[in-house]
Amino acid sequence: MTKEKGFLLNKKILNDTKLICDLPLCKFLLMNDSNYPWFVLVPKRPNIIELFDLSEEERNQLDNEIYEVSKYINDSFKPDKINIASLGNIVSQFHIHVIARFSNDKAWPEAVWGKFPSKNYKPSELKIILNKFRNFSKKFKINSI
Amino acid sequence: MTKEKGFLLNKKILNDTKLICDLPLCKFLLMNDSNYPWFVLVPKRPNIIELFDLSEEERNQLDNEIYEVSKYINDSFKPDKINIASLGNIVSQFHIHVIARFSNDKAWPEAVWGKFPSKNYKPSELKIILNKFRNFSKKFKINSI
Repeated sequence: MTKEKGFLLNKKILNDTKLICDLPLCKFLLMNDSNYPWFVLVPKRPNIIELFDLSEEERNQLDNEIYEVSKYINDSFKPDKINIASLGNIVSQFHIHVIARFSNDKAWPEAVWGKFPSKNYKPSELKIILNKFRNFSKKFKINSI
Repeated sequence: MTKEKGFLLNKKILNDTKLICDLPLCKFLLMNDSNYPWFVLVPKRPNIIELFDLSEEERNQLDNEIYEVSKYINDSFKPDKINIASLGNIVSQFHIHVIARFSNDKAWPEAVWGKFPSKNYKPSELKIILNKFRNFSKKFKINSI
């Protein structure tokens, strides 16, 4: 846990998302935008801006968590494509987007950023989508790395 | 080399880029768009669409190549932010964008995709930018994984 010391989730990310669960390295979040099944991973480490600010062990774990999350999203939503990206031009705290894309979604085939205003989930929709991930964290060791 | 059998670089990627060098897993390419220092990594494996189509060994090597490339780009261009993304909504062959972004570049702070028409490098510019990477491949074992 000591490695998480000093980590504080960026306020904009906090406002724009709902927590799904804590993974060993990352906070696993749902973007509150029902236009797309859109997820965010944030390594629980302070002062990380770029991928190379993480240690090799942390990068390996991040790769593992992106792999597990993207497979689970693929199995749950059966999208046409998964988009994975770390941009950070607006919020510099290092975070990874994992987005299930469909050939009939609003922005297809373009990237989603800056395209359409986000559309909050209704509470009933939110419940369904968060329920899909109820068992997800069991795939991981609970202990933080 | 046998694992590369059947791999053929997508035609659109081939047309839009210049080869910098072959890394153990990926082709390392420069996007021919002088609006941004924009690079592309393509794992030399056939039929890869999503990250999870790669083996664990290949994912580890990809992570290593993204790390080395982004550090080298950071040292060479001193950008304000590095954007790393795998989208593939238009070209499904799995490829990773690594883009050096500046707070005074054309699209900042937005993502670059679909923003501005690409602007080919002049031959003299291309020579300079490719020269920066002349020694880059020496950081890697030449053998393919």
